[in-house]
Amino acid sequence: MSNEINSDEMNGAESLVRTLIDGGVTVCFTNPGTSEMHFVAALDKVPGMRCVLGLFEGVVTGAADGYYRMLGKPASTLLHLAPGLANGLANLHNAKKADSAVVNIVGEHATYHIKYDAPLTADIEGTAASMSHWVKTSPTSKTIAGDGALAIEAATQTPGQIATLILPADTAWGPADEVAVTTAPSAPPKVSDDAVKAAADLLRTSDNATLLMGGAALRERSLNLAGRIAAKTGCGILTEGANTRLERGAGRVQVNRVPYVVELALEVMKKAGDLVMVGAREPVAFFAYPDKPSLLVDPDAKSTLLAGTDEDMEAALEALAIELDCLDMEPAGVAAPHRPALPTGEITPAAIAAVLGAMVPEGAIVVDESVTTGREFFPTTAGAPPHDWINNRGGSIGYGLPVAVGAAIACPDRKVIALEGDGSCMYTVQSLWTMARENLDVTVLLFANGTYNILRGELTNVGVLNPGPRAVDMLSIDRPNLDWVQMAKGMGVEASRVTTAEELATAFDSGLHSEGPYLIEVAI
Amino acid sequence: MSNEINSDEMNGAESLVRTLIDGGVTVCFTNPGTSEMHFVAALDKVPGMRCVLGLFEGVVTGAADGYYRMLGKPASTLLHLAPGLANGLANLHNAKKADSAVVNIVGEHATYHIKYDAPLTADIEGTAASMSHWVKTSPTSKTIAGDGALAIEAATQTPGQIATLILPADTAWGPADEVAVTTAPSAPPKVSDDAVKAAADLLRTSDNATLLMGGAALRERSLNLAGRIAAKTGCGILTEGANTRLERGAGRVQVNRVPYVVELALEVMKKAGDLVMVGAREPVAFFAYPDKPSLLVDPDAKSTLLAGTDEDMEAALEALAIELDCLDMEPAGVAAPHRPALPTGEITPAAIAAVLGAMVPEGAIVVDESVTTGREFFPTTAGAPPHDWINNRGGSIGYGLPVAVGAAIACPDRKVIALEGDGSCMYTVQSLWTMARENLDVTVLLFANGTYNILRGELTNVGVLNPGPRAVDMLSIDRPNLDWVQMAKGMGVEASRVTTAEELATAFDSGLHSEGPYLIEVAI
Repeated sequence: MSNEINSDEMNGAESLVRTLIDGGVTVCFTNPGTSEMHFVAALDKVPGMRCVLGLFEGVVTGAADGYYRMLGKPASTLLHLAPGLANGLANLHNAKKADSAVVNIVGEHATYHIKYDAPLTADIEGTAASMSHWVKTSPTSKTIAGDGALAIEAATQTPGQIATLILPADTAWGPADEVAVTTAPSAPPKVSDDAVKAAADLLRTSDNATLLMGGAALRERSLNLAGRIAAKTGCGILTEGANTRLERGAGRVQVNRVPYVVELALEVMKKAGDLVMVGAREPVAFFAYPDKPSLLVDPDAKSTLLAGTDEDMEAALEALAIELDCLDMEPAGVAAPHRPALPTGEITPAAIAAVLGAMVPEGAIVVDESVTTGREFFPTTAGAPPHDWINNRGGSIGYGLPVAVGAAIACPDRKVIALEGDGSCMYTVQSLWTMARENLDVTVLLFANGTYNILRGELTNVGVLNPGPRAVDMLSIDRPNLDWVQMAKGMGVEASRVTTAEELATAFDSGLHSEGPYLIEVAI
Repeated sequence: MSNEINSDEMNGAESLVRTLIDGGVTVCFTNPGTSEMHFVAALDKVPGMRCVLGLFEGVVTGAADGYYRMLGKPASTLLHLAPGLANGLANLHNAKKADSAVVNIVGEHATYHIKYDAPLTADIEGTAASMSHWVKTSPTSKTIAGDGALAIEAATQTPGQIATLILPADTAWGPADEVAVTTAPSAPPKVSDDAVKAAADLLRTSDNATLLMGGAALRERSLNLAGRIAAKTGCGILTEGANTRLERGAGRVQVNRVPYVVELALEVMKKAGDLVMVGAREPVAFFAYPDKPSLLVDPDAKSTLLAGTDEDMEAALEALAIELDCLDMEPAGVAAPHRPALPTGEITPAAIAAVLGAMVPEGAIVVDESVTTGREFFPTTAGAPPHDWINNRGGSIGYGLPVAVGAAIACPDRKVIALEGDGSCMYTVQSLWTMARENLDVTVLLFANGTYNILRGELTNVGVLNPGPRAVDMLSIDRPNLDWVQMAKGMGVEASRVTTAEELATAFDSGLHSEGPYLIEVAI
């Protein structure tokens, strides 16, 4: 289709939509209002933008995060003034911590209308600031195309960034001049020879060293290089506690994560010894606790940064492998194909882990927000066919289903498996409707333990040893019970409830063979 | 129960809880996380704080808004770090625009932990700023009680304010000295004699004048004074487009609102003529539209402010009535008792309006988020027994059910009727669960038109005359249909669906005779 236009007729909104599409932003996750109506109208006039509606803004921003994680290119969002943006902030926080690129378009009152302090008037730039790397209000319909290109350029840095472009209504409806051209991002810089030599020296001289990997270094090729370095030097390989996207499974180099629980993390980091970091930082505790350390690294360990997330990490690993003369070695730690036996009887975290290990299909995208239930899932799935595993990098719960929506839009030929806690799921439960509307190939395992279970442990961790009934009540979500089958069906998603491991396997098989969304309430 | 304490054992969290209770803040709407666990534990140790759990922060902040609107005293909220606060911002925006007092307690990492940039670390003060009047991070466990008192004092100004107190984890768990004493707010100042004389002069000399009322001037006594002034001077009485809480019904002075639609509002304001404003501002358009004015007042009209929302508005009206020598007159415009006949047949907005008029019980609190469906509800309910009518002052949808939760907690002996659009309801649908958990006496009329209907009109209003299929699709929420009965039951709320006016009346009667929550999906 042609993008030829008669500039006499083009308004600001249309010039922005055309700029976005020309700049490679071809999906828009939307929850629009009045101030965005010209943008919505432009989406009709201009072909090339897939629009996906969410009924809550946290769905929209989380979906953009999931889309970027899978495709490495940004989606846009369409949000309604400061409160609409505010509803999307928590998942923008998660996206920001995951180094995901997102281009937010936030509607604003017409510039001349702001001074009247109408009901929805609020400080959009201030609201955006804490969860954005780049914020700009475009002043006129002649500038909006250029500012749209700047937003894409800001987002598509290495690593990705959150760019928030504010679109006043008169900027949208006024006349535009032309579509703007977006400058493609430059390739990330190579690391210095010194960084490579320092890493090689540490690995050569240390008795006990570990490659600590993160960010985009968790793809197959980089992990394979890490496996060769491990084969040569005997070092370990570890990832941060939560990963943006980890390529794993049979035939890939297997890595473990730093555990969430401080005591376990300290043990793991003690064993890890000296650290060569690639796209990762020295691990810190998720929360502070009385009399426990914030920094988890062994105080006696040395560490060196081979490559940051803003550098070419794969090239750095290759340079290190060359320096260590192991580029052609067989990588260590490659996972052998292995499927555990299907479990029977009671549904326990271990039984769920076995079902996953036995059934996760090749190419699956696992979006993991299983919180306490999921701590045993990694070992049993290590030998499953190659798949991706996605974690929450920002820690704000309610990220799972929205990210699954975005991953499914990004990769329509792959099965998405969302592992969700019941408490977490409620924050962005509206995601189910978007899954139904777009017939997204997502199977949701909903772990219904009727509690903010992680907080039970956290009460103890912060030193509250005998919580009283009112404290426990604030962590319990089983009065009344949430009926997930009814809620899912109410939003158009097929669903069933399982109470034994056998039923779980049967229902999971149904989900995997469905081509649309399917939710399984797993009673535990 | 005694508040006597052994200060040797009291930590910061407990000193804050005790300060809140002593300062009159005796309800806490909560959605806590790890950083708030000491506050949660203190809630057990200290009697006197009612805790109400929400499964999403927008429920929590909206409930605090509704609570204040009914009782005129603040509730507290308990929120988890910047993303938890972010999820509550939209309803804090609405509360701020409604001049509601709210005391937010936002947990933060321990002060020494912030520098490690753990996953949930973000700028809480910056996130709070745009939706708060007062923001402070309390630095130590010795200061938190005093800062809690400052937060209450900031919130309980006239009019109410949003106060956000940030509680680092070590501030919560460290040792405290003592409970702080909150200074009671001073009474709002009386208006000047000049303001009264200017209003009297305008009303005496104008051919056509109107009292434009807002804020806390919409209570029975102030409206009654306005009715006497109208009887004496022949002036009209009007309210702003959306009211924080309007006391209305049979025996009370009846007032109309400035309409939402610009053309209708311009007509009404033209007829209104010169304005004497009491707790109201000159009306402005909700949104700007091409070639329509932002300011809705007649450009030829004179206006004067009798009293602002920060002044004693009732005393000002009384002074004006004395100045006009009408304090003992019978008020004009008192609504006569009237119940329309119950309708039959198809469910239309007019039929719903008739059902409401026929059945709204005495003392009901109507929380109105009916958007397009509800534009005809006011006239038919004017003669119903005395009741309160609550509107959204901030315009961010998803305010209705949370405000209904807070109103029901505030007034357990009154029936709450929530009028909800389907699109609006989805933003904070988790409210239904809190209604079930607390067995709140709320009847929800859920108007299921399967569309963001208001945006259909807005497309036209902004000049998009022939929206294409993709634009219309972005405003349609009927693919798939939302099954509200299943969703409500899934969260523990009794529900039914009605398709005729007769069924609506029968189901509404069931809801009104229920003592817990009841949702009616009204197919329109």
